[in-house]
Amino acid sequence: MIESPEDLKRFIRDIQDYPVKGVIFRDLTPLFGNYEAFSYALNILANKLIDEKIDKVAAIEARGFIVGAPLASALKVGFVPIRKGGKLPWKKKSMTYELEYGKETIEIHEDAFNRGEKVLLVDDLLATGGTTLAAINLIESVGGRVQALAYLVVLNYLNGRDRLKDYRIYNVVDYY
Amino acid sequence: MIESPEDLKRFIRDIQDYPVKGVIFRDLTPLFGNYEAFSYALNILANKLIDEKIDKVAAIEARGFIVGAPLASALKVGFVPIRKGGKLPWKKKSMTYELEYGKETIEIHEDAFNRGEKVLLVDDLLATGGTTLAAINLIESVGGRVQALAYLVVLNYLNGRDRLKDYRIYNVVDYY
Repeated sequence: MIESPEDLKRFIRDIQDYPVKGVIFRDLTPLFGNYEAFSYALNILANKLIDEKIDKVAAIEARGFIVGAPLASALKVGFVPIRKGGKLPWKKKSMTYELEYGKETIEIHEDAFNRGEKVLLVDDLLATGGTTLAAINLIESVGGRVQALAYLVVLNYLNGRDRLKDYRIYNVVDYY
Repeated sequence: MIESPEDLKRFIRDIQDYPVKGVIFRDLTPLFGNYEAFSYALNILANKLIDEKIDKVAAIEARGFIVGAPLASALKVGFVPIRKGGKLPWKKKSMTYELEYGKETIEIHEDAFNRGEKVLLVDDLLATGGTTLAAINLIESVGGRVQALAYLVVLNYLNGRDRLKDYRIYNVVDYY
């Protein structure tokens, strides 16, 4: 039985020292694999988001797609993939940003949004916020307006909320 | 108005000579971005699949997640990601297979299924069937049983159906 968001932590697997020593990786695959747990989490997000009157959901490759695509269905709006570099086949904008180890490039199609559409940006998990900031820039570079951010999990100890304080953040599970 | 699956082709962008000369790439991002079109396609698949009594949906990174995750929600079952090599954090099985240009590795967590669970394998598009065959092997290597295959689009001219004739295939749009 799942009676509160805290119960979802039973479906999140902590992996010590992954991908590098000293880091705890929060593996959401057991949560995705359990219909009761995953639908509970998606329903919480969808219910919180109704009043935002979102026009489109954009999500970040690849785990963000697992959360963003069913959330777009629940909110009855279209879905836009933000992909890693070199994957999108049509006219696109790119953004390269610094990770803790090296760089990453993400891309979006130029026709992803009508000008001024209210976009919900979705990823599975908020860590430092670096990927989210790059994705916000990308969405706005092609005419979307980031209305809110949504995650299943926020790792508050990495201070992503501070870097994203200009945006409303919706999530289900918090780690402190 | 979308009145038949054929109408969905207006939301599929044909890109000539991508990724290599002589190939037509079928870009589904305009379909994903249009709620009416995408939900029409997902509903067709979900309605066809009800009688298969699926236990879990497995989908192939990354575009397969965009179709598989909302389909798992619609079928009220858990979702299992099959990921590219090096992405999954826990105990896993790997499968390496030949592509037209080079090799690809895909992976799945060892605890993805209870033994004998009926799995629906989902990807966005069926081309030659090579990726699907590797994913079937992977699912069965960890105790799942592939009950059926589902795609939004089948490129019949690449003969994937012949290579997968032991499996029931559900799809929405066909190109010949």
